[in-house]
Amino acid sequence: MSRFWSDTVRDLAPYVPGEQAHAPGLIKLNTNENPYPPSARALAVLSGEVGPKLRLYPDPSSRSLKLALAQRCGLDPANIFVGNGSDEVLAFCYMAFFKGRGPLLFPDVSYSFYPAYARLLDVEVVPIPVTDDFRIDLEPYCGRSVGACERPGAIMLPNPNAPTGLALDRNQIQALLANVPDRLVVIDEAYVDFGAESAIPLVREYENLLVVQTFSKSRSLAGLRVGFAVGSAELITGLDRVKNSFNSYPIDRLAECVALAALQDEEHFTACRDKIIHARERTREKLRALGFVVLPSRANFLFASHPRVPAHQLVRALRDRRILVRHFDQPRIDQYLRISIGTPDEMEALVSALGELTSSTEYESVETHR
Amino acid sequence: MSRFWSDTVRDLAPYVPGEQAHAPGLIKLNTNENPYPPSARALAVLSGEVGPKLRLYPDPSSRSLKLALAQRCGLDPANIFVGNGSDEVLAFCYMAFFKGRGPLLFPDVSYSFYPAYARLLDVEVVPIPVTDDFRIDLEPYCGRSVGACERPGAIMLPNPNAPTGLALDRNQIQALLANVPDRLVVIDEAYVDFGAESAIPLVREYENLLVVQTFSKSRSLAGLRVGFAVGSAELITGLDRVKNSFNSYPIDRLAECVALAALQDEEHFTACRDKIIHARERTREKLRALGFVVLPSRANFLFASHPRVPAHQLVRALRDRRILVRHFDQPRIDQYLRISIGTPDEMEALVSALGELTSSTEYESVETHR
Repeated sequence: MSRFWSDTVRDLAPYVPGEQAHAPGLIKLNTNENPYPPSARALAVLSGEVGPKLRLYPDPSSRSLKLALAQRCGLDPANIFVGNGSDEVLAFCYMAFFKGRGPLLFPDVSYSFYPAYARLLDVEVVPIPVTDDFRIDLEPYCGRSVGACERPGAIMLPNPNAPTGLALDRNQIQALLANVPDRLVVIDEAYVDFGAESAIPLVREYENLLVVQTFSKSRSLAGLRVGFAVGSAELITGLDRVKNSFNSYPIDRLAECVALAALQDEEHFTACRDKIIHARERTREKLRALGFVVLPSRANFLFASHPRVPAHQLVRALRDRRILVRHFDQPRIDQYLRISIGTPDEMEALVSALGELTSSTEYESVETHR
Repeated sequence: MSRFWSDTVRDLAPYVPGEQAHAPGLIKLNTNENPYPPSARALAVLSGEVGPKLRLYPDPSSRSLKLALAQRCGLDPANIFVGNGSDEVLAFCYMAFFKGRGPLLFPDVSYSFYPAYARLLDVEVVPIPVTDDFRIDLEPYCGRSVGACERPGAIMLPNPNAPTGLALDRNQIQALLANVPDRLVVIDEAYVDFGAESAIPLVREYENLLVVQTFSKSRSLAGLRVGFAVGSAELITGLDRVKNSFNSYPIDRLAECVALAALQDEEHFTACRDKIIHARERTREKLRALGFVVLPSRANFLFASHPRVPAHQLVRALRDRRILVRHFDQPRIDQYLRISIGTPDEMEALVSALGELTSSTEYESVETHR
């Protein structure tokens, strides 16, 4: 605490990212990274002409990348915003659309960055409980007014949700959009490519929709920091105004050209995605055979709970075996592990370790523990 | 204007970056980029092992880069913050230190991003006029209270100043720090390596000092987006808290390792800097010989005014000759050109063009125009 801190910074509760372990030989299933490298075509860019050009500022509007994304979405570049990872895009949404416009609604079991942004950027939030089986029930999001505020507020929905992996169908999203025309709905689709339905085809029809995606997961580029938003030209202009009052150049030259090349390698994208979906489904079956409850995920991770062995003990015992998974010490989900999908070998090692751990009598039961 | 915009975004006046022209063959002296490529050692990193690792998140605390910067500054990594260009670092300062703590003072002729941040991040600003010869007189920054506010406020000083290029000496900064112990002083040293004195040696002694620098100028890495701040561990913690509530990973893997390698190539750094300083001094002499008033710059640009030919006409005529320089249509400086220092050949082309233009009778005089 410094006497020069603002009141804002004093009261923050910053987001804590998953551990970025530096030790070699770890099986790292804790931060939902892609186990496969980025497209070779994307990496080839790095040996090209981009290096010497680093002396020049990047294109502040990332036009080439916007154009390629627009073509992919069947929209116009004016419908695309590009930012430094979807995290930055989401932060800009708080400033552009949420601040001072009423409460922001999001699921209580969700990405733990949502409330961290709100504290920094002074946005009122109303977490809406997910159901007992972790589904998002959309009915509470449709109330005409929420709380005491008369302004319409906004909705943030991760789809698929993290850390549950559960997805809403596009027709559910569409019904919500039609029900709350005065409430902006941001769909955070970080994991959508692993089997859920994107809301992007609804952008033309619903001006209250903004869809956010990332290159970090399905494009194997978590280390590159590129995310984007898709919405009406007016919403995108709002994001641009914030960006140009904050940091004109969040996308560096390397990031723009690597992302562009990655986007063009459809074959690599599909092959990696299919391998991950296949490994996810196989791992889910095997974990269920070990007695785990495993939610039906459409993301690149599984959310799993053992009826007998406490999750925090499993996390520690897996770590002793050099396997990292993520555990959230939060109400409702503290008995669950979030397991990123790695290569088949990595998943085999995980299942084997969990098989030993859950059959051992060494670990106290959930009942004893609680 | 969208009905979903926040009041904040509606009222913004975003910063307008210098034009990033895409046409080939331009002599681009408008955005203070370095005319020389980055260190070959820095670029060699791109052909190494970093590409396949892009599937993994970067180190959220950029430890390797912080360590190298700390060693260079004779400080501890806890004294260093790294961000996505100094623009992002400055934006974080507004949230961490300026908001709600009284007025922010900065020179009225200065980096035009300062007021843009303030509108977005809700910080009261008090521009302090520079003298008639564009110097920063520090006396008005030392007043016990500024305006009606009783909170101490903060000071932002670019050193050297942009777009004037004029610098304060370290002993002037030191006297200011001692005079206003309750007021945080941020020194924006984007251009300091081209001949001014850094305030970094004062960090140990003055807890009210934060120094911000960038890799964009003297390291030829404008396209990479890496900036950093140096200050007390408590100030750095404040910036970290903001970053971790906004975007955990603003520095991508490529940026961290290229910046690190660039920092280690002292020889390339010194050689490029010396060439630029030499070209600046030669260009200044030649422009003065053409009748220009040219401020004594310690940055990688010159600020110059012709007593007869209006600046806006010179900008347009240079552009017709495929030479870009920057002109600010603002009170007090609208008769000046800001000319980035390029290669000797580029500066020769500029001087030659200005020689023709200022000797021509085609252009109306400043007197006629005004």
